[in-house]
Amino acid sequence: MDKITRTIKAIKPPDKNTVARAQERQDTLTKPPGSLGRLEELSLRLAGIQGKPLPVIKDKGIITIAGDHGVVAEKIGNWPQEVTAQMVDNFLQGGAGINILARQINARITGVDMGVARDLASHPSLLVRKCGYGTKNMCRYPAMTTEQAVQAIETGIDIVTEEATKGLDIVGTGDMGIGNTTPSTAICAVITGKPVAAVTGRGTGLSDAQLEHKIAVIQKAIECNHPDPTQPLDVLAKVGGFEIGGLAGVMLGAAALHIPVVIDGFISGAAALIAASLAPVLKDYLIAAHLSAEPGHRIMLEYLGLEPLLRLEMRLGEGTGAALGIFLAEVAARTLSEMATFTEAQVSEKGEG
Amino acid sequence: MDKITRTIKAIKPPDKNTVARAQERQDTLTKPPGSLGRLEELSLRLAGIQGKPLPVIKDKGIITIAGDHGVVAEKIGNWPQEVTAQMVDNFLQGGAGINILARQINARITGVDMGVARDLASHPSLLVRKCGYGTKNMCRYPAMTTEQAVQAIETGIDIVTEEATKGLDIVGTGDMGIGNTTPSTAICAVITGKPVAAVTGRGTGLSDAQLEHKIAVIQKAIECNHPDPTQPLDVLAKVGGFEIGGLAGVMLGAAALHIPVVIDGFISGAAALIAASLAPVLKDYLIAAHLSAEPGHRIMLEYLGLEPLLRLEMRLGEGTGAALGIFLAEVAARTLSEMATFTEAQVSEKGEG
Repeated sequence: MDKITRTIKAIKPPDKNTVARAQERQDTLTKPPGSLGRLEELSLRLAGIQGKPLPVIKDKGIITIAGDHGVVAEKIGNWPQEVTAQMVDNFLQGGAGINILARQINARITGVDMGVARDLASHPSLLVRKCGYGTKNMCRYPAMTTEQAVQAIETGIDIVTEEATKGLDIVGTGDMGIGNTTPSTAICAVITGKPVAAVTGRGTGLSDAQLEHKIAVIQKAIECNHPDPTQPLDVLAKVGGFEIGGLAGVMLGAAALHIPVVIDGFISGAAALIAASLAPVLKDYLIAAHLSAEPGHRIMLEYLGLEPLLRLEMRLGEGTGAALGIFLAEVAARTLSEMATFTEAQVSEKGEG
Repeated sequence: MDKITRTIKAIKPPDKNTVARAQERQDTLTKPPGSLGRLEELSLRLAGIQGKPLPVIKDKGIITIAGDHGVVAEKIGNWPQEVTAQMVDNFLQGGAGINILARQINARITGVDMGVARDLASHPSLLVRKCGYGTKNMCRYPAMTTEQAVQAIETGIDIVTEEATKGLDIVGTGDMGIGNTTPSTAICAVITGKPVAAVTGRGTGLSDAQLEHKIAVIQKAIECNHPDPTQPLDVLAKVGGFEIGGLAGVMLGAAALHIPVVIDGFISGAAALIAASLAPVLKDYLIAAHLSAEPGHRIMLEYLGLEPLLRLEMRLGEGTGAALGIFLAEVAARTLSEMATFTEAQVSEKGEG
């Protein structure tokens, strides 16, 4: 717990002075002011987070954390639990969506097993940091103990801290875990206070009847556990997941090191709700890559005050949306740093109309 | 004119059979069906256009065409005409926004002078294909002759045909030209039939009074010239621009060669209106990169039946939006081609719920 407290204390608001200097440079670049739209805003945010008027996005990382969920016993989805481990294997063989996306943006990926239900064969690209073999079925028990919740977050902090030693200018978050929209939805409902039915989606493709059942399961999990919305660790322990805790830790640890965090979709959004409830200033370090097809995601992002960069109806997870967001962040940083100024280019200044 | 007619005849509808084969493969990839959202749709479109069930996006090009506009004499913007030539110089020195974006996506850029008002110093990266030294002031005269309109389109066809000989799997369109939102707005109003006031925007940043003046100028140009909305060459000649005609030619020429075209913002949209009026089947070859901050752009895209991939409030032109769209197209093609199938990855198929 000390590690979480220390990390939270280390997160300072982004530097306004640096943002002002970045804005000054934006205003001198050879383009009509504001004409790069949201990429300009993004460049200023990156400057403030990194504390550099010319933000640098060179070393890019995606941390994709896998975990299983006992609540799959309630049959809330279409895929059997063993698919989580198979997805991790597919990722380790380079065949998953995130492998292609990460290659495209030249980012390294760190795959982490924080709670897959079985032991995976060891692989040089896999960090094994198990907090358990899947969570418990949250319809009957808390998903994990408070100690496991703390362990999950601290493990996330450790992972990103270790990654930062290799050079890390920006980090994206990703998830793998059959059933993980269910705890994410529960977290969304508890923390934002919205009705479960308003934030529950079809995950990987549920029918109307399956959707009704999923809503009932989430309501039961909340009624059974009574998570306290003002206590993020309690929410994580009772209705969360190991990968969700891990991603919350990654976000906190990155922010403490002035590293911008590009959050992926719905599962990363749930992690962000936990992390930002622990450390409200964290919100200023988060970049929402995209708006997921999951209906609760919009509510999460509104609650966090984040505007997604992309709306491509993606819902794959793994960090695929985050990869696209990292690409846009790199473009934003590079235009700010590399475009010529009016003076350099000897272009006439704007006239009087 | 023969060249335009021949090119239009060569444009065939995308191949439905290939699209079906691409869809079959999408359905076998290791992800929930549809979970890459609009990237999946895009991959199918690319397959159909290229006639390849595994579309290839390797050789990427952006064609950025510059031209000047006599209507700047009516003081419709804030920037003096000489800035067009200076922007081209800045581009040739590598300092423009499009230079950074093209480098980021590993695309080559072809810069073309089709109508800058003065002669530019020769440069290995600049094609000089002048149709004139700026258009005429369309408030008093047709912007160009019909012969020049034909020449502009044919030049665009030639440029993309030449580029294709070097390898070109996808092409983005870009523009440079002080004042070019004014003819683009006129084209939008004439072809879509919308009132000028509904499609006129603030370009590089006009005040309310300047916006009113710009609307009046466009209305005057249309009243003075009476362009025939059913005759795209007439519209181009009377209220168009050389770069707009050139970009229309690029689109037609690319489609004739089964090359997908990623259109940039408002000026490319005007070119697309001209080109798609000449050859309606062209629409199936166009990918709308983004929704520009110019209000008429949404109306153009709706008229063309295109849904933009990005909404980043960009309005820089030069092909900067197109570059981002090409990146997404490459991601779409690569996920379709390179992700593992369920069989390859030995991942369990979706269960019965």
